[in-house]
Amino acid sequence: MLNFGLTDLRLVAPRDGWPNADAGPAASGADIVLEQARVFDSVADACSGLGLVFGTTVRGRDLIRRVVTPLQAAAEFHALPAPGGILFGPERTGLETEDLAVAHAILTIPVNPAFGSLNLAQAVLVAAYEWYRQGSDMAAATLVNHDGPAPHEELEGLIGAVDAQLARNGYYNPVPGRAAAARLVMRNLFTRPEYSAGEVRTLRGIIRGLSMPRRPGAPD
Amino acid sequence: MLNFGLTDLRLVAPRDGWPNADAGPAASGADIVLEQARVFDSVADACSGLGLVFGTTVRGRDLIRRVVTPLQAAAEFHALPAPGGILFGPERTGLETEDLAVAHAILTIPVNPAFGSLNLAQAVLVAAYEWYRQGSDMAAATLVNHDGPAPHEELEGLIGAVDAQLARNGYYNPVPGRAAAARLVMRNLFTRPEYSAGEVRTLRGIIRGLSMPRRPGAPD
Repeated sequence: MLNFGLTDLRLVAPRDGWPNADAGPAASGADIVLEQARVFDSVADACSGLGLVFGTTVRGRDLIRRVVTPLQAAAEFHALPAPGGILFGPERTGLETEDLAVAHAILTIPVNPAFGSLNLAQAVLVAAYEWYRQGSDMAAATLVNHDGPAPHEELEGLIGAVDAQLARNGYYNPVPGRAAAARLVMRNLFTRPEYSAGEVRTLRGIIRGLSMPRRPGAPD
Repeated sequence: MLNFGLTDLRLVAPRDGWPNADAGPAASGADIVLEQARVFDSVADACSGLGLVFGTTVRGRDLIRRVVTPLQAAAEFHALPAPGGILFGPERTGLETEDLAVAHAILTIPVNPAFGSLNLAQAVLVAAYEWYRQGSDMAAATLVNHDGPAPHEELEGLIGAVDAQLARNGYYNPVPGRAAAARLVMRNLFTRPEYSAGEVRTLRGIIRGLSMPRRPGAPD
């Protein structure tokens, strides 16, 4: 829960009472969730203050209910004016039909039809992840490059050094147009990676290293 | 892994050797993943046959790399012609910088900045969930109603019975237009839930029950 920013844990008639000494180590440091947890006698009482409640189940029931994915549930929660809630059942038995009758709709996690055996902790994790992910402003993809790409003239210097060495070594095909095409391919190898100034320096050293005459006595 | 349809487990130099007797119970029935698991000496060897490899890490490193969310990684995997892979590190230490250097890019799960402590199993679960979810054809939201909504004339019969009883009891405001507005509100209460034929019958019984003269001797 706390990994994904959720702290409002509501327990209904916990089998082993509450507080429960076993819960501390299992929480791995998320003690604030345990400290703030509230205990209720009934599922209906536990839903007090919630605007939209999803019950979780994997088995089809004889209930007429809207069934939604975690993605959809999270989107609806984010659009709600009041907090929503997700109702999870005991590990072994899941929610009873009487519990599901308290919920407005059903949340079902899409799983491999040939092997669906998410446990309680896994189901909570996935539902909480979707909620947090949809509110997160983390960019889908970013190039983390603290120094930024090298100044462009340094990149040009690298490309020019490669080009000069290749020309010197007779790498380019003399057929008209072929050398220009090969230069374009080579240029793209060096521009796309957004190399930093340090990496451009390393590459220039590598180019020199590749072009050096073989050291006398070096193994084949 | 198997919950989300993944079976290709590749292990690099497992600390306790392989096969490992402790893995069976922990797999909770996903034995096929263990049976098919392959062991490699190096991270680079383990990536053989993969088209795009993401390394997972939470800590910023001194690496210049594209950093993507699980959502983005899954989208890229689904668009690839060849299988991709996700590289996870040991539980306590995570991936070394040398391991990350094998990967094309970094996958980071968005977590609560004040409490981010996903363990290995949780990180695998979230990444696998995103992959499976994006390939799943499960509808975002469906009303599961095996009998379907009642034939419309039965719904009209219910609405008519409610209307007749309300009129009989003087419920409607005599100011012109008010009764029509109230009837519209009432009608919407009964059309939106898409009640089945059985539910419409139950509601007609409830309407009759509410309208009955009080049983002699019933408590206040």
